[in-house]
Amino acid sequence: MRTRKKPWAKKELETNNYLIPNPRDYKNNWSKYFISNNTNILEDSGNKELHLEIGCGKGSFITKTAQINPDINYLALEREEQVIVSGMRQAKELELKNIGFILSDVSQLQEYFGEAELGRLYINFCDPWPNKKKWAKRRLTHANFLAVYKKLLKPGAGIFFKTDNTLLFEFSLNSFADNGWRLRNISLDLAKSPYEGNIQTEYEEKFSSKGMSIYRLEAYTL
Amino acid sequence: MRTRKKPWAKKELETNNYLIPNPRDYKNNWSKYFISNNTNILEDSGNKELHLEIGCGKGSFITKTAQINPDINYLALEREEQVIVSGMRQAKELELKNIGFILSDVSQLQEYFGEAELGRLYINFCDPWPNKKKWAKRRLTHANFLAVYKKLLKPGAGIFFKTDNTLLFEFSLNSFADNGWRLRNISLDLAKSPYEGNIQTEYEEKFSSKGMSIYRLEAYTL
Repeated sequence: MRTRKKPWAKKELETNNYLIPNPRDYKNNWSKYFISNNTNILEDSGNKELHLEIGCGKGSFITKTAQINPDINYLALEREEQVIVSGMRQAKELELKNIGFILSDVSQLQEYFGEAELGRLYINFCDPWPNKKKWAKRRLTHANFLAVYKKLLKPGAGIFFKTDNTLLFEFSLNSFADNGWRLRNISLDLAKSPYEGNIQTEYEEKFSSKGMSIYRLEAYTL
Repeated sequence: MRTRKKPWAKKELETNNYLIPNPRDYKNNWSKYFISNNTNILEDSGNKELHLEIGCGKGSFITKTAQINPDINYLALEREEQVIVSGMRQAKELELKNIGFILSDVSQLQEYFGEAELGRLYINFCDPWPNKKKWAKRRLTHANFLAVYKKLLKPGAGIFFKTDNTLLFEFSLNSFADNGWRLRNISLDLAKSPYEGNIQTEYEEKFSSKGMSIYRLEAYTL
């Protein structure tokens, strides 16, 4: 997601303590991060399940999700500093104890997470890299990425995926199916589907309000 | 599919020998039907693979498919006599040796076919039974039907499924996935997909010519 550069972003990145400066330090030990971040140790916040959103954009989805699920710890990965600060600010305003932000790229996932360390992955409205065969490898649901996700997810854990792009959804359905993931709760028009409790991203809110349809699926490791 | 009643249908049903009057007789032994139907026994037409279309309508899809695949034997099931005669007539005109028609209903499948007797199933543009939960059981991709198909198909064999109905396709994707079928070659807009060699049904031709999109998938037993 490209946005206008915001001069205040750099300063906010330096002063908002929801940004995790050295995510490598917590690999295989994310409980350490959440315990040190939490004033109430008695809540045992370190042993909670860990969910990650790849490409959180402005962060509305993941901060809302963290707010209504205090028993789960959340991490939000985003490579654009101009948008990640918006999520960090929301987390600060809500005084959330169960979320942290990582300013980085999907290529670094295995630097930050050990095998079977994640309980769930969220991928919302990622770049569809449309119409270019040579760009298929950049799509976040390409077989190469799925192989990495499979390593980092617990056995039986899932990826929750949303997009408005028909070709990306088609590509993703096939990619998950071809690579042995178990598909569940597939929606071809989320607004009309029986799926409840959907939390919208900023992009989704704008898009859905125009009456356009959203695709969604869950894919689980076996 | 409801059509106007055609007075000639009854007569044509009685005189066109592509209609199989007693399909129960060939259960577990469909080679017998195709050998007796074929003047050239040397072609060994009885040992060919057997593919079935459920609900062939006017039969264009299955007769064209039979014409270009002489090494496969085809059966076309349809419960409406007013439309099945159209397929029978096409088969007669083309002098096909590898197709037969069954005037009956999906509920009778296990009367006609033994376990692992079928090499493929085609389901094209079946009734979507829309918007009624209590009608879900009538959809040809409901779990109850999938359990029957799985018995009748060889291990690893597939169902080729097409529809223009979004809710039916969504229902079918979930039904196949939930019941342990392996999905392949999913198309959300067949005209734009890389799938080649599509043979259109009468309904599909009319529908596609209006620029509307067709869904397609393949689902395989494990």
